[in-house]
This record gives sequence, C-alpha cells and structure tokens, in this order.
Amino acid sequence: MAEKYSDLESALYNLVTKFHDASANKEPTLNTEEFQTLVSTQLPNLVKTGNEQGLSPILQQMGVENGQNISFEDFWKLVQSTATSLFGERKPEKTVKCKCLLL
Amino acid sequence: MAEKYSDLESALYNLVTKFHDASANKEPTLNTEEFQTLVSTQLPNLVKTGNEQGLSPILQQMGVENGQNISFEDFWKLVQSTATSLFGERKPEKTVKCKCLLL
Repeated sequence: MAEKYSDLESALYNLVTKFHDASANKEPTLNTEEFQTLVSTQLPNLVKTGNEQGLSPILQQMGVENGQNISFEDFWKLVQSTATSLFGERKPEKTVKCKCLLL
Repeated sequence: MAEKYSDLESALYNLVTKFHDASANKEPTLNTEEFQTLVSTQLPNLVKTGNEQGLSPILQQMGVENGQNISFEDFWKLVQSTATSLFGERKPEKTVKCKCLLL
C-alpha cells in the first residue's frame, strides 16, 4: 500500500485494528476477557477498570448484557463517549477570562 | 503531562484535537469552509470530496443543513460511518478459503 495516511486516518485505522486484533480467533466480536484486555491495555488512562467487576458498569453503559460478546458497534459506543468527554474537557480552555480588575 | 498514552488513546486524542484545531477561532463548531479543509487534508483517502458540491452529500448524510455549522457530534457521525466501513472491509479476509481442488 503506497498511500500515505493523515494523522486522522491513521487514528481511524488504529481504532479499527486494535479492536480486530484483540480477538484471538479473529472473530468480529470479542468475549468479555478479550474486551477486558483491550480496555486495560489500550485505554488505561481514559477508562478505569480494576477487575472483572470494574468492567460491569462499562458494559452496562454500552448496553451489553452479562456474558454477551462485544461487537464493534458496542465498542464504538465506548469510543464515542470517551471522545465526547475529551472534547468537552477542552471547551473550558476558551472560556478562561483575564481576572485583572481595574482598581 | 507525564502520562504515556497507548496507540488507541493517542488515536482518540488525535480525533478530538484535529477537529478542535480546525476551527480558526477555537469555536466548538466548524463552518463549512473549515470543515471542507479538515476533510480534504485529514481524510483524503477515506472521504472523497472534489469541490464544494462534493461535500454536500457528506453533510446531508451527517444531517447538517446547508450553511449550518458542523458540531463535534455531526463530525462524529462521519467518523463512525468511516470506521464502520473500514471494519466491514476487514471481515472478508477471514472468509478467504483455499481454492485448490482435488482432481
């Protein structure tokens, strides 16, 4: 492949590839264990999970039932909510105003 | 920031930052021109747009009316559909079967 990818395109490929590679059998979905490994190795700073119990609220938020496999669409919900929070966190920067007062 | 980000986390930061930086006035939304620049410089291989007209179907797909600014949520729809196609494109790989025949 001779195409040169931009930062944003590489980012997209990365998201897709990391999910894909997390499946031991190259299945289109991940089991809970594979998903736990993906989250703890690939999202250690952004998504906090301590143990198996720590993953439950995340799976619940993604609409995944206990023991159910995780599809790319499910994973994408987590990616989206994480990206939206990151974007939200950047907003306050521009509302910082000079606090100097004319005395 | 001393934290070391994983590939996936860096990818997420990249998506957020590229959208944020595309706004000349650091607004939370982009105007059509800023969005056109973002798409043509950052998604040249994945999203094809030739000219202003070329952007229309993409905006329409994102649910953005003519002349309306593009929010991060709108942009995310494009990111999601692009990622989903990329993920879909990977699937056929695993269905390739040996075509040898016993003669």
